Amino acid sequence: MKDTIMNLQERMKERNWGGVLIPSEDFHQSEYVGEHFRARAHFSGFTGSAGTLLVTLKGAYLWTDGRYFIQAARELEGSGISLMKMGEEGVPSLLEFIEREGISPLAVDGRCISVDLGRKLSELTELHFDEDPLEGLWNPPDFPQAPVWILKEEYAGLSAGEKLAKIRKTMAEQGAAAHLLTSLDDIAWLLNLRGGDMVHEPLFLSFLILEAEGGRLYAGADSFSEEVLAYLADLGITLAPYGDIVRGISEMEGKVLLDPDKLGYTFYRAISGEKVEGMNPTALLKAVKNPVEVENFKKAHLYDAIAWVKFFHWLKTTDLNGETEWSSAKKLEGLRGEVASYVAPSFESISAYGPNGAIVHYAPTAEVHAPLQPRGLYLSDTGGDYLEGSTDITRTVALGPVTEEEKRDFTLVLKGHIGLAQGVFPRGISGYALDVLARGPLWRAHKDFNHGTGHGVGYLTNIHEGPVGFGRVAKSATSLKLWPLEVGNIVTNEPGLYIEGKYGIRLENCMAVRDDGEGFLAFDQLTLVPFDLDALAPELLSQGERDYLNGYHKQVYEALAPHLDGEVLEFLKEATRPI
Amino acid sequence: MKDTIMNLQERMKERNWGGVLIPSEDFHQSEYVGEHFRARAHFSGFTGSAGTLLVTLKGAYLWTDGRYFIQAARELEGSGISLMKMGEEGVPSLLEFIEREGISPLAVDGRCISVDLGRKLSELTELHFDEDPLEGLWNPPDFPQAPVWILKEEYAGLSAGEKLAKIRKTMAEQGAAAHLLTSLDDIAWLLNLRGGDMVHEPLFLSFLILEAEGGRLYAGADSFSEEVLAYLADLGITLAPYGDIVRGISEMEGKVLLDPDKLGYTFYRAISGEKVEGMNPTALLKAVKNPVEVENFKKAHLYDAIAWVKFFHWLKTTDLNGETEWSSAKKLEGLRGEVASYVAPSFESISAYGPNGAIVHYAPTAEVHAPLQPRGLYLSDTGGDYLEGSTDITRTVALGPVTEEEKRDFTLVLKGHIGLAQGVFPRGISGYALDVLARGPLWRAHKDFNHGTGHGVGYLTNIHEGPVGFGRVAKSATSLKLWPLEVGNIVTNEPGLYIEGKYGIRLENCMAVRDDGEGFLAFDQLTLVPFDLDALAPELLSQGERDYLNGYHKQVYEALAPHLDGEVLEFLKEATRPI
Repeated sequence: MKDTIMNLQERMKERNWGGVLIPSEDFHQSEYVGEHFRARAHFSGFTGSAGTLLVTLKGAYLWTDGRYFIQAARELEGSGISLMKMGEEGVPSLLEFIEREGISPLAVDGRCISVDLGRKLSELTELHFDEDPLEGLWNPPDFPQAPVWILKEEYAGLSAGEKLAKIRKTMAEQGAAAHLLTSLDDIAWLLNLRGGDMVHEPLFLSFLILEAEGGRLYAGADSFSEEVLAYLADLGITLAPYGDIVRGISEMEGKVLLDPDKLGYTFYRAISGEKVEGMNPTALLKAVKNPVEVENFKKAHLYDAIAWVKFFHWLKTTDLNGETEWSSAKKLEGLRGEVASYVAPSFESISAYGPNGAIVHYAPTAEVHAPLQPRGLYLSDTGGDYLEGSTDITRTVALGPVTEEEKRDFTLVLKGHIGLAQGVFPRGISGYALDVLARGPLWRAHKDFNHGTGHGVGYLTNIHEGPVGFGRVAKSATSLKLWPLEVGNIVTNEPGLYIEGKYGIRLENCMAVRDDGEGFLAFDQLTLVPFDLDALAPELLSQGERDYLNGYHKQVYEALAPHLDGEVLEFLKEATRPI
Repeated sequence: MKDTIMNLQERMKERNWGGVLIPSEDFHQSEYVGEHFRARAHFSGFTGSAGTLLVTLKGAYLWTDGRYFIQAARELEGSGISLMKMGEEGVPSLLEFIEREGISPLAVDGRCISVDLGRKLSELTELHFDEDPLEGLWNPPDFPQAPVWILKEEYAGLSAGEKLAKIRKTMAEQGAAAHLLTSLDDIAWLLNLRGGDMVHEPLFLSFLILEAEGGRLYAGADSFSEEVLAYLADLGITLAPYGDIVRGISEMEGKVLLDPDKLGYTFYRAISGEKVEGMNPTALLKAVKNPVEVENFKKAHLYDAIAWVKFFHWLKTTDLNGETEWSSAKKLEGLRGEVASYVAPSFESISAYGPNGAIVHYAPTAEVHAPLQPRGLYLSDTGGDYLEGSTDITRTVALGPVTEEEKRDFTLVLKGHIGLAQGVFPRGISGYALDVLARGPLWRAHKDFNHGTGHGVGYLTNIHEGPVGFGRVAKSATSLKLWPLEVGNIVTNEPGLYIEGKYGIRLENCMAVRDDGEGFLAFDQLTLVPFDLDALAPELLSQGERDYLNGYHKQVYEALAPHLDGEVLEFLKEATRPI
């Protein structure tokens, strides 16, 4: 067993704990967490974004989902930690396991688990949640305090004052005197502020308590310039120390509006007064992009496509000898960086050659990466944050000759992508009800992929943004998952296919939901990058699919041609030729 | 205001009731109820199968769903009763209305409302549920007591003893000493008994209390022959009077297993001991048809198709002068009756010419019906109960020349039908996640239909059987609605399109879910009747759709040809020609 686990088990014996739970969340229920919060990675060795480690006196167990089965198996090898593949037949859930094994008492940092999980654990076991059970067992870095900056109204479309007025209207309707927000993307979007405390998301560590008149932002004082402090003061918001939030919560007066699905358990339990529980009003507002945001997103995608087509040309024409997954990812980042309003990558670049493409969330590092070779498939899933919005695009490119099997699978994925891209649907329909449009062509070939088909995209916030998206409707679907699509939602469409040990294919566009008339909605393609015709088996496309592909490529050519010239323009012309 | 309503309002004043609720259910939460239970139709004049009447001192209000908007508007005309179109924008739900108007106390016969509704009403208002508020205000017929008969094991596939053993295993697993069943189809299926107390379903009015050893069936004694009583005695089940059920429930001892979604509120409230609430185990068992049942269904559909093709030939060749919606429905019933194992229609025949086809659940009567004419579209949605199972088929037939608009819409509906019929999907997927396969082609033309896309089919029980089916996934979807399809489910596929005042189109097959290999499932077509090529615009079909249609017609021809001859065989050959 790993040392980290054995040291923890020593402490467990001293304190008489039956188990310690190490979740992957931070205090803000973030999907990707900063170094300070990477206890689960430190103690288990598994570096994926989603996973929960349970340490008992007898062993250690890591639960993760289908995106990470291959990676987790590799990273846990030899650690003595058992991999628990979520959703696989015969694998108990975390809660089932805790109940079955009678693990009690269980210690966990309650700030890092959801209200729902905290409640369920409390029913199953004696839960110690009010201290960090790992204190002193590792040395996490301090909280970062990167500068906070103002996103101008020309980018945000609405002033923070206008946004706060909308939220306060909801508070008043619900009879709430205060509103507690702990999700970083909601706070950043609401205040038109951005930061740099996370690895990729331009967010800052904070909590917000909003009242009918003013409000308090709990955050690191070093992040705030005079200018930003003055901006906050104009909004009636004062700064308080990040570490004071629990006390701040316990002192709130009157009814408190909160979304238990977006709140850590400790913070929830700290509320002494009456609660009004409901869907986070900021989350609903920000998911429906305003017209300025939508127009900005279109600009960001134009910049992004120009960079991507240059990259595409480079991939197809450069001597790949000496190039790697890492160098090619850096090449693309560099091309994006040529735009003045570029901020940073919007998430960790996935740049995967051959078999690495089958590891859904594989990311090369400066140290560990594979060389590119002039054959087979290369998968690139990357994005840029621009002041005009965030992009997220995946293309799979033939670096040379590809097999018939690779072509067939590429074409099946493209058929799925086209099926969803062409979706037309009445108001009131959830993306989850459209999921089969993307999976249908794969299912008919008895193939499938083990991740969602698409997600909402934030504006310089989180690349994965709720509540809308595409995925399988499971029996346990919540009404939240079935939230209807609305004009202004920005969503991805990203079916894939993964052949372990061989290759991975994913084809992803961002789309804006638009009004199609007569009560129906449809998708506008924001991403404007050709699909690699060298990887296609055109005979497998129906006439309708062929028409769509030719139409899309025509749209791409017309949008990009004015911004390109020379060899790259020639390449674009060839890459978007009708088939 | 109608007299029936005014008389009720008189009583309300005497008793100081703020409102009276008249639901459309019987004591068994049946979808279609016998005459004894048709209070809502009597008091309101609306004869559809689903609707709830609320009478207050100020007015009367009828809630019904999209299937019945046109019919209800017509039947309520001049009654003074307001039509509340469920799901339409701005129309409050029954509960919202009761809350908003502050209607209290509210009287209702608690035996006729669901547990869920009873609970919600109790939270909103002072609920008087333990007597029938309509007693003496109308003269419903007595409870019917038609003979109960035994469905032999060669039809049922499993003996009642084997089925009871499975249910008792579930009871034991859940620690239940008793199990209460009030749904008539579950009781009939479990005991391999059928009756004739309902208008169409071959069921008998009864309640069942099952214990670890024996059980009591509460039903009308006159329905039971010596033979059936002996059969029940062999199963350890004794007969008790139908009217004694509430007392019987209150006397149950030990934990009681029950499904609150299948139980009347009064019965639920009568349970004094501990409850184990869960999905009705009989409902789950009977939805997955056993191999004998599936083979029987195939036979029933073969008989049914032979009758239907004779009817189809008759429709296309007879002089329609003098024929009506009623006479044609009787013609089809007569052709079905030529089979020895035919029992009766499986539901009220929908036989609708022209504009009547746009009324989704229109049914002609001996008195009120339209003549057929040698032009336009005729819609027939009918079914037969055979000892080998129940059928449910809809075809829309051109009785002569049809317009381009009619052809286009017919073809759009057929495209949807084909989309779902070709569905292939992994285990674990609900029919609700496949719904867009049927609606997609209509949605792309900005058209839709206001009913479910398909339902489970019972074996000589209810034609609409849960828990599987196809329909829109709404935000309020329950996990029950998202129940996954399994091998052995029998489901319908019935998209439609309804142009008010002009015509209606619906194309419905029954399908069996089958194993498609490698963890995937697909559909076998049980219904074997051609789609009318005279109503088709073939140029609107994709090559894939055309291939499907030709393949299906080939299957139909090969299955039916050995059983037909002469003119009808010639007709079949022409009707199934490749296009």
